[in-house]
Amino acid sequence: MTARLEMLIDQGTGREPADIVLKGGTFFDLVTGELVASDIAICGDRIVGTCGAYGGRTEIDISGKIVVPGFIDTHLHIESSLVTPHEFDRCVLPYGVTTAICDPHEIANVVGAEGIRFFLDSALETIMDIRVQLSSCVPATHLETAGAELPIEKLLPFRDHPKVIGLAEFMNFPGVIHKDPVCLAKLDAFYGDHIDGHAPLLRGNDLNGYLSAGIRTEHECTTAAEALEKIRKGMHILVREGSVSKDLQALMPIITERLSPYLALCTDDRNPLDIAEQGHLDYMIRTAIAHGVEPLAVYRAASISAARAFGLRDRGLVAPGWRADLAVIDSLENCKAQIVFSAGRRVSDELFATRGPVAPVGLDSVKARRVEAAHFVVPATEAETPVIGVMPGKIITEHRRYRLPSSGNKASVDLDRDIIKVAVIERHGKNGNHANGFVQGFGLRKGAIASTVGHDSHNICVVGVDEDDMARAANRLGEIHGGFVVVEDGRVTGEIALPVAGLMSLEPYETVRDTLHHLRKAAYALGTQLEEPFLQVAFLPLPVIPHLKISDRGMVDVDRFALI
Amino acid sequence: MTARLEMLIDQGTGREPADIVLKGGTFFDLVTGELVASDIAICGDRIVGTCGAYGGRTEIDISGKIVVPGFIDTHLHIESSLVTPHEFDRCVLPYGVTTAICDPHEIANVVGAEGIRFFLDSALETIMDIRVQLSSCVPATHLETAGAELPIEKLLPFRDHPKVIGLAEFMNFPGVIHKDPVCLAKLDAFYGDHIDGHAPLLRGNDLNGYLSAGIRTEHECTTAAEALEKIRKGMHILVREGSVSKDLQALMPIITERLSPYLALCTDDRNPLDIAEQGHLDYMIRTAIAHGVEPLAVYRAASISAARAFGLRDRGLVAPGWRADLAVIDSLENCKAQIVFSAGRRVSDELFATRGPVAPVGLDSVKARRVEAAHFVVPATEAETPVIGVMPGKIITEHRRYRLPSSGNKASVDLDRDIIKVAVIERHGKNGNHANGFVQGFGLRKGAIASTVGHDSHNICVVGVDEDDMARAANRLGEIHGGFVVVEDGRVTGEIALPVAGLMSLEPYETVRDTLHHLRKAAYALGTQLEEPFLQVAFLPLPVIPHLKISDRGMVDVDRFALI
Repeated sequence: MTARLEMLIDQGTGREPADIVLKGGTFFDLVTGELVASDIAICGDRIVGTCGAYGGRTEIDISGKIVVPGFIDTHLHIESSLVTPHEFDRCVLPYGVTTAICDPHEIANVVGAEGIRFFLDSALETIMDIRVQLSSCVPATHLETAGAELPIEKLLPFRDHPKVIGLAEFMNFPGVIHKDPVCLAKLDAFYGDHIDGHAPLLRGNDLNGYLSAGIRTEHECTTAAEALEKIRKGMHILVREGSVSKDLQALMPIITERLSPYLALCTDDRNPLDIAEQGHLDYMIRTAIAHGVEPLAVYRAASISAARAFGLRDRGLVAPGWRADLAVIDSLENCKAQIVFSAGRRVSDELFATRGPVAPVGLDSVKARRVEAAHFVVPATEAETPVIGVMPGKIITEHRRYRLPSSGNKASVDLDRDIIKVAVIERHGKNGNHANGFVQGFGLRKGAIASTVGHDSHNICVVGVDEDDMARAANRLGEIHGGFVVVEDGRVTGEIALPVAGLMSLEPYETVRDTLHHLRKAAYALGTQLEEPFLQVAFLPLPVIPHLKISDRGMVDVDRFALI
Repeated sequence: MTARLEMLIDQGTGREPADIVLKGGTFFDLVTGELVASDIAICGDRIVGTCGAYGGRTEIDISGKIVVPGFIDTHLHIESSLVTPHEFDRCVLPYGVTTAICDPHEIANVVGAEGIRFFLDSALETIMDIRVQLSSCVPATHLETAGAELPIEKLLPFRDHPKVIGLAEFMNFPGVIHKDPVCLAKLDAFYGDHIDGHAPLLRGNDLNGYLSAGIRTEHECTTAAEALEKIRKGMHILVREGSVSKDLQALMPIITERLSPYLALCTDDRNPLDIAEQGHLDYMIRTAIAHGVEPLAVYRAASISAARAFGLRDRGLVAPGWRADLAVIDSLENCKAQIVFSAGRRVSDELFATRGPVAPVGLDSVKARRVEAAHFVVPATEAETPVIGVMPGKIITEHRRYRLPSSGNKASVDLDRDIIKVAVIERHGKNGNHANGFVQGFGLRKGAIASTVGHDSHNICVVGVDEDDMARAANRLGEIHGGFVVVEDGRVTGEIALPVAGLMSLEPYETVRDTLHHLRKAAYALGTQLEEPFLQVAFLPLPVIPHLKISDRGMVDVDRFALI
């Protein structure tokens, strides 16, 4: 293939016209921090010329516009966009996100290695460069029933796949600190390779122990103080702004030029409605700048610093020899991508049409038995009952305790105090577990909301005021092979089918977006004022996030890492 | 080996006493730029605790001292230290240089792959982490006779050796730009892997063409303007301060906090006399700070930024989980290493004594025939003669032209204008080539200096006033199997034997240092005022450095890349 090298050199020196030349604009030099007026020459998948004059077979006038390196989302679960990788590609790449480093942790918890294979097969077809980290904690904990297990032997066959970057977020941090053998076997196998971190609120010497296992990144910082300790201890901090977890505001103080080599951006979990309404990483960039963050710092975090943290040596700068992942934006402050290049290809509908299809997996993943209202009955007690305290826009919950009212020998919801029921129903056909509990903060006055998205084992999670509605909602999920359902007065008032492992739609992202819009309205009609009621439901079962959660096995005190 | 992980975690959390704890000092946090008072806990080869209190099986009081990450020399030829890798290790590691990325280009030019193997075998034994880049240009050019050839087929067997980092400095930059097939085959094989650059004065679109081949670093910048163009084009700039090439002063303007993520330090060629008198990378650091460079910028360049540029993900910060390569220094400004740790081992004579020996190679490499004064005769001419203009402390030369005096039909030296003779004699037993020329700037009033170190093909290079002395010096090199020789009035007044490929001594570095000291005096007695007369001789044959050079095939116009 020296023919390719010859072409790169010929076009780079300007002896031959370049394949594409962007003319009349400037580029944001993330090294010097300057806006540099220059032609940008592209040959094949590479930038071959900057800071000079070039002629091209195709010349594109970008007068008045700014070229920046394509953005890198350093940690996300594509499943949380509720669409397949192909639709995620089509949805997010136009915002200038040319690389997405994903952890197929959700689908892996439902269908195991088959889910990782589905993502890798998809990544070989998408226009965006999707990289896959190997889900490190399936199941996430011993406190829940997942659909699959991925011990180290099932991960190793994927290790050398060209799209794989090491081990995904090692969320079982208590397991690391307490030397759980299953955790250590994985950490040992990937020691020296990339291992993503996930250790919310972990500080001090326990954090040191966690890091000593070779873990290097963190996307779970929720305060600047936590981020500062972690960045000082050598962690690359991935500033996160998802649909539920929103840390950008809190972490803005650390997005400085000095710290920028050690920062990156990520979305973790972001749904297509938010993407449509706000944008993606571009939203983070413009929000940060609007709040006074230096453009150089945030653009570095969005590209070159992210690339370096993940060993992606070919991207992150607008410079000769680097991968032509480029966003042509209107201004640094506004960051609206007007033209996007992925590996030198101008992004368009026609380009997306060139992708080969990948067959979906996990189409029959909802195996829960039908339930009735009686399944949601909780016996009355004189003692205080643990209640999950939900906080808007946070996946961290509070561990609250209340004396609940009762009716007969049954504990009741308490709408005056906004306490309603929550249940998790095992849906992988393993054991039929069913656990009930209480949750505060949803604002529901009636009805029920149910979901087969329930991090991380993705059992059915239902919240509701009325047991009949809760049963109806849970049973409807089986009929549509997974998704979100809203029930009001015995009637399904909104639903979206997510038949791919109960997590992702088979529809185009535009349809998903519109359906979600209706679905939100149906949920708001129940009284909730949470911006993201479905995602807040989906995170109630997540036992690696403090402080009180619920799994199919019961209420989980995360701080003690034990069932109550 | 999860036993190792368990130990790291136990000591990191503080559950078990650490192997070693440094107490009472501070460390320089290269992320935040702060001096942080903290214990530093070490377990095995790793740091496991910072920013906390630790107990250790061994505790070392470092009150009043500062811990910094071990320094990384990102580009050097160990051969230029004139000692073997084992002696280099013993000489330089105590200065805090814990990683050296070397290019065995010199020995490879004499004995080929056997020389690379010698370096790799040595690197497996040294305490310092010596990394080896595969010499990309052996022979460096078609304009000289080297002792060996290393086409791509001879490099590939070394590619996956644990000590190898990609391809070494790609110095044949005209070959790249003009698509020489031998060059392209190597660039193609290593495309996407690390490829070091070397392109002095290359600018504009030709530089873009060179970079389009996938080349990523540059240690040949001699002005801030050149460095700024190259760093803006995505090159990682390795600021060099060797024994001959001294770029630190000129490049200080670019050693800023902003640019520091894209900078590193290197010595390229540094002899043991300079190391003894000035130090090594520590000398660069203290000199830069004394001239006003921000400590954060230069310490980053010396460690974390260097590590990132070369994909050494495990080192460069004082942080848990990172390799315990540490220098305990007196102050940031003075940068004198008082204790050094290499992979958690305290550096000492006893530690060096644990290394296994490696048998030297190339012990009979000087195969030149004996010469006589008549070989150095140059016919008189009326025309102007090209004269190499030597500049103190630079390996770049000027292409000057003079009408030379003559005696009979022979061109003469011209001591009034400081023009003397130079000759290069092929010494690999290939063809017996002998080329004569003239050089200006040595200051020699009599005698001759000869060397088997003659970059890059390492033929014999002699400069002198007197043909008899030149012949005596060249012949003496054969008798001692290579080295440096000074002859005055027919008598050898100084010499050092370098029998390992005619490049390296078999003696301890202290002996080499003392011998060099005497040798310099012998050279000064001839009248030269060059600080490094032997290295300036050694670089006269280097046809990849502008502007006028001499090889065994004749005078070389580097700008035209052709023999005159």
